[in-house]
Amino acid sequence: MLEDAGRVRLVDVPDPVIEQPGDALVRVSLAAVCGSDLWPFRGQEAFTPGDRMGHEWIGVVEEVGADVTRIRPRDLVLAPFAFSDGSCRQCRDGLFTSCPNGGFWGGRHDGGQAEAVRVPFADGTLVPVRTDADAELLRRLLPLTDVMATGAHAAVLADVRPGSAVVVLGDGAVGLCAALAARRARAGRIFLVGRHPERSDLARRMGATDILAADDPATIGFIQDETKGGVRSVAECAGTQSALDLATELVRPGGIIGSVGVPNGVDRVDLYRLFRHNIALRAGVTPARRYLEPLLAETLAGQLDASPVVSAEMSLEDVATAYRAMDTRQAIKIAIRP
Amino acid sequence: MLEDAGRVRLVDVPDPVIEQPGDALVRVSLAAVCGSDLWPFRGQEAFTPGDRMGHEWIGVVEEVGADVTRIRPRDLVLAPFAFSDGSCRQCRDGLFTSCPNGGFWGGRHDGGQAEAVRVPFADGTLVPVRTDADAELLRRLLPLTDVMATGAHAAVLADVRPGSAVVVLGDGAVGLCAALAARRARAGRIFLVGRHPERSDLARRMGATDILAADDPATIGFIQDETKGGVRSVAECAGTQSALDLATELVRPGGIIGSVGVPNGVDRVDLYRLFRHNIALRAGVTPARRYLEPLLAETLAGQLDASPVVSAEMSLEDVATAYRAMDTRQAIKIAIRP
Repeated sequence: MLEDAGRVRLVDVPDPVIEQPGDALVRVSLAAVCGSDLWPFRGQEAFTPGDRMGHEWIGVVEEVGADVTRIRPRDLVLAPFAFSDGSCRQCRDGLFTSCPNGGFWGGRHDGGQAEAVRVPFADGTLVPVRTDADAELLRRLLPLTDVMATGAHAAVLADVRPGSAVVVLGDGAVGLCAALAARRARAGRIFLVGRHPERSDLARRMGATDILAADDPATIGFIQDETKGGVRSVAECAGTQSALDLATELVRPGGIIGSVGVPNGVDRVDLYRLFRHNIALRAGVTPARRYLEPLLAETLAGQLDASPVVSAEMSLEDVATAYRAMDTRQAIKIAIRP
Repeated sequence: MLEDAGRVRLVDVPDPVIEQPGDALVRVSLAAVCGSDLWPFRGQEAFTPGDRMGHEWIGVVEEVGADVTRIRPRDLVLAPFAFSDGSCRQCRDGLFTSCPNGGFWGGRHDGGQAEAVRVPFADGTLVPVRTDADAELLRRLLPLTDVMATGAHAAVLADVRPGSAVVVLGDGAVGLCAALAARRARAGRIFLVGRHPERSDLARRMGATDILAADDPATIGFIQDETKGGVRSVAECAGTQSALDLATELVRPGGIIGSVGVPNGVDRVDLYRLFRHNIALRAGVTPARRYLEPLLAETLAGQLDASPVVSAEMSLEDVATAYRAMDTRQAIKIAIRP
């Protein structure tokens, strides 16, 4: 739980129980700390002391409620970072994060950085893996629940097309996954603009063809020259004002900014430039549930491996250390073993 | 020309001449005053005293330069509100308003509220009508050059689909044309939200199924109830902060705001709401040239009539009166006969 800004603490709580007939109880196999967990941790986002933490996790079902039919005990399941009823208009439209009965893990709900989680609407929310998984496969599956789904969403929002040039803004786990998603969408050239030059090798492994520094004044000119005036697709994976401003400069007339970073202190949009050049702004929290089945199938087939963004693994006892390591950028993403 | 804020004056200037081999000289048959002409007129937009005025016009070609092949003398032609070279990447992509060699009528260029206009890139810019036109047909053709093309662009940006519910914000000429465009795209229900109840009959004629007052606090609730939570497509045709705010409230999760009003004093976008519900914002000046051929074909076939938005006609001598009548909302759009 988040005790106070800068203080995450492991506490014993009663085991969750089935409360509704649609619930499942899931024992967590592997969880992770997300970049967005750092915002309340840093006090940059509102939280209530005692909030439970962790929205990236996979686990094994222990028990299901009377109405649950798709999910069975002993299933290894992927949990998208939001739960949803699976039956409302928004869910039927694939917009699971706008489900009026849905919500996010953590806070008042159980968090994934824990031993067990009560999952509402288990049939609508969870995706069973239906195969045995060793530690290596668990590490490949874990990123699908959030950062890889979000990278895929960025590529969809930015409408990445085969052979096209793409700019990815951000070299955190989401940006790296967006590069992988752009490669999966067969982009011809993938410019990754970030702040961590030490991640270059990893970025190349994830699909980036050009690694550029966000704070290098030559970056904008380089991309504009190489692409003769900017790219059609920008995947904005930081959620900051400077990233949105950069996106607006690097997108070409008629292009699209796909923005998946949670807007944090972003209060200016250069609407006149968007208007003047018919540039679409498509910002959106990832309806992760929509992406889990295809990403799972590709991962099981050995065609997709997002595990390189998991840079370390720690036990649940060391969760406070994990937050500090993420906060100081010593790690991209730390997996938490309960 | 615009002499000063609030002062439009007819002045004699030398007849334009062919300057470049791609030019055409066109004698204006009919022009119009546009709502956007009122902004510099009111001093709400920068202008240079002496700016020529008028970007909505049609005319008959008098003379063409040596390189002009598609356009011939005596052709009746439609002039989109921007000229463009027709050959650059942007023009090939249909994004004529982002042509690096293009520009808008008026200001330093000849304006359409005049007797004659020099047209750069005549082959790329002008669309020949290729039929005789009486006064009635001229009135039907005139709106295609701007407001009807812009209405069509709003429906495209907002991705209006057959059978769907659409909100159009604004009951000026563009909003009315957007209603017509939504009907043309076979929308099932068209909510027009405006500020001029006296335009209700006209709005219905243009395709609106429900006419609502922007300043009525019940309007939002009515639309949300009737559409079970908002519409997928909002065509924002005012360019004001209040219209954008209203669009953000009336669009449903996963929906699209298509914004064609020139942003005037708009400096806030509720990016968090867009992000939270995957709402796309597609703002764009209309590449009118893209729409002229299909709109012309439908008009000539008698399937499309945007002329009801032309509420009066005056002679060029009375252009100052026309501005005052538009400014005081006594007229929706006034045609100017040279």
